Amino acid sequence: MPEGKPEVVPDDGLTTRQRRNRQLLMIHTGAGKGKSTAAFGLALRGWNQGWSIGVFQFVKSAKWRIGEEAALNALGELHESTGQGGPVEWHKMGSGWSWSRKSGTEEDHAADAAEGWAEIKRRLAAETHSLYVLDEFTYPLKWGWIDITDVVQTLQERPGYQHVVITGRNAPPELTDAADLVTEMSLVKHPFQKGQKGQKGIEW
Amino acid sequence: MPEGKPEVVPDDGLTTRQRRNRQLLMIHTGAGKGKSTAAFGLALRGWNQGWSIGVFQFVKSAKWRIGEEAALNALGELHESTGQGGPVEWHKMGSGWSWSRKSGTEEDHAADAAEGWAEIKRRLAAETHSLYVLDEFTYPLKWGWIDITDVVQTLQERPGYQHVVITGRNAPPELTDAADLVTEMSLVKHPFQKGQKGQKGIEW
Repeated sequence: MPEGKPEVVPDDGLTTRQRRNRQLLMIHTGAGKGKSTAAFGLALRGWNQGWSIGVFQFVKSAKWRIGEEAALNALGELHESTGQGGPVEWHKMGSGWSWSRKSGTEEDHAADAAEGWAEIKRRLAAETHSLYVLDEFTYPLKWGWIDITDVVQTLQERPGYQHVVITGRNAPPELTDAADLVTEMSLVKHPFQKGQKGQKGIEW
Repeated sequence: MPEGKPEVVPDDGLTTRQRRNRQLLMIHTGAGKGKSTAAFGLALRGWNQGWSIGVFQFVKSAKWRIGEEAALNALGELHESTGQGGPVEWHKMGSGWSWSRKSGTEEDHAADAAEGWAEIKRRLAAETHSLYVLDEFTYPLKWGWIDITDVVQTLQERPGYQHVVITGRNAPPELTDAADLVTEMSLVKHPFQKGQKGQKGIEW
């Protein structure tokens, strides 16, 4: 099947096994749907591997992703009670970060975002998780709330075997430069018609 | 946040509530990653809504998606034991469809695919599931194993409130025409550099 075989074998001196076991920085960007959803789908796979999953939701509203949060938390609880899969932590900025004694500050989203990133840095240094989902993380970068240079350097120098998935529109070029895999999700509003069918108002 | 507000309000005479409660046909296509993963992410949301989830995997190898299958099945079992979320059924062609007494025929993938589609038609008529994930379904369509006209007509005439997500490369135009939402996942191999940075060998 198409996704099973790589189109090119990288000339990086690594064996296939070494390449497979390399920690990855993945970006899901673009204006289409599925950026976050695909990241949570990856978390399912990681959970089944017994990985520790850390989700960090950089959105103002804590109402988002309630379904994914409930399902992944249920899997995390299943791990605690039966040992199946791996542990799951879900942290969200909107209602105040779970590790923080402060409640989410209404006024200062920039400070909340910076606090989230500081915690992620600590966890990367401590090798806390095997998969980090930094959901909607491109927005605090775009708005200058978190320093992109610090993010790129931290990610490039992270120790061990820690995968990171970052979602959000308009991923900055410094970030996509540093990434191993960048996927763009585009919404196809008016699918182009191939073959015999043309569109009224477009082709005639 | 960007995904929260529609860019255009459709002139279809429906209220926002009616539009929200319309059953959707969604296509995840393109050469990039995340097509199936995003569909399984959607299944997480559906599970939390208490929906009945039916996954139909149209791939030859049953080894694929093992992580997603294990995680979604764990959620399905959690539903059975505690009532949380909804039921989950995961069927795969590779090892012989679960409802079928036949084992997967080594020789006749076309017949296996057609049998899968016949079962999906029965379930759509019976309104068995709230969300159908037809994974890699574009390939049997492309190869002529399943009749695209029958698929489009069946999906357009399906009763009730049954969402369908179809994944796979090269979705046929008849299918994207009929879809409510088409997302294209593209692999950005050499991300275009915006701003001050140019790429050696490309811009100079």
